[in-house]
Amino acid sequence: MARTGRRAGSSGAREQILSAARQQFASQGYDGASIRAIAAAANVDPALVRHYFGNKEHLFIQVVGLPADPADFVPQLLAQGVDGLGVRLASLFLEVWDRPDGPFVALLRSVTTNDQAATMLREFVTRVVLEPLAATLELDQPQLRAALAGSQLVGLAMMRYVVKVEPIGSMPRDELARFVGPVLQDYFSRPIDS
Amino acid sequence: MARTGRRAGSSGAREQILSAARQQFASQGYDGASIRAIAAAANVDPALVRHYFGNKEHLFIQVVGLPADPADFVPQLLAQGVDGLGVRLASLFLEVWDRPDGPFVALLRSVTTNDQAATMLREFVTRVVLEPLAATLELDQPQLRAALAGSQLVGLAMMRYVVKVEPIGSMPRDELARFVGPVLQDYFSRPIDS
Repeated sequence: MARTGRRAGSSGAREQILSAARQQFASQGYDGASIRAIAAAANVDPALVRHYFGNKEHLFIQVVGLPADPADFVPQLLAQGVDGLGVRLASLFLEVWDRPDGPFVALLRSVTTNDQAATMLREFVTRVVLEPLAATLELDQPQLRAALAGSQLVGLAMMRYVVKVEPIGSMPRDELARFVGPVLQDYFSRPIDS
Repeated sequence: MARTGRRAGSSGAREQILSAARQQFASQGYDGASIRAIAAAANVDPALVRHYFGNKEHLFIQVVGLPADPADFVPQLLAQGVDGLGVRLASLFLEVWDRPDGPFVALLRSVTTNDQAATMLREFVTRVVLEPLAATLELDQPQLRAALAGSQLVGLAMMRYVVKVEPIGSMPRDELARFVGPVLQDYFSRPIDS
């Protein structure tokens, strides 16, 4: 699977594709967006999109500015076992989001309607990280667990970056991860009997 | 303290005030909005706003469609003790938000920018309910606890009403409250040592 998205010296077409993808993901959500529609909006051939970014998932990862492929970091998160997973998960998100001029929060703030922002945020949190994680853990009700953990992370992002509520807005990342981590841990480990 | 906001037969001025208040709270947040500015936007005298709604807090409660004064339901939430408080709290929010054509979710969806929607939601959740609750419980770090619990509730509202993620989007209210309740309980009871 070719991952040439970070290759230096790629042409202006690459930026055009990323810009079109940003718009498509924001307006259509992950499922609604397609390589074909993104290529059309960027005025390039779909083959060029695949050449630069491989597939839709990798294109999405580039758009949201994830530092690594989830296929790589889900095993990393789990390398130390399930203990402390919640704190590591919260730290991972906060680290990606906290980056100055990180593309994700800028993206979140720039989409024009609330629905689009919320959709992007949700897609990123649940689809890219939580669902693969729940699948790897082979938990019962993985979709429910991912959605609940996602609701906490989406709310955290809203409070820290959009509404900037204190003390969440300016709290050091590690401290915040220690508060929120146990909640994520709980959603990924508690028995669900219903 | 006069609370005549629900009085039948009040004039069109009342609706004008509510509409102006909705806009002011959405664009300025709770702190930034003032009776004076709302009255000016509604083209009425500030005394008329006070006549209909008493004060800014009660006006806000009318705008977000809260069924009762927090001064009334905070003691109700606590009447059965701290045990099960989280589930009762989650149920309360979900009940208010789930109402068909409830003003709050309509308001949330109608504000034009993400920031405004997020601000309204946050103000409602933290200021109207969680901060009074934390104050009544005489907990340490009430603002932090309210902000953390608020982040979970804000995220839940985004997932259930805005992005409509399954199974959260269509899950029965009581079941959802049972999942999220323990998290709120935790934020309102765990020791915070930092």
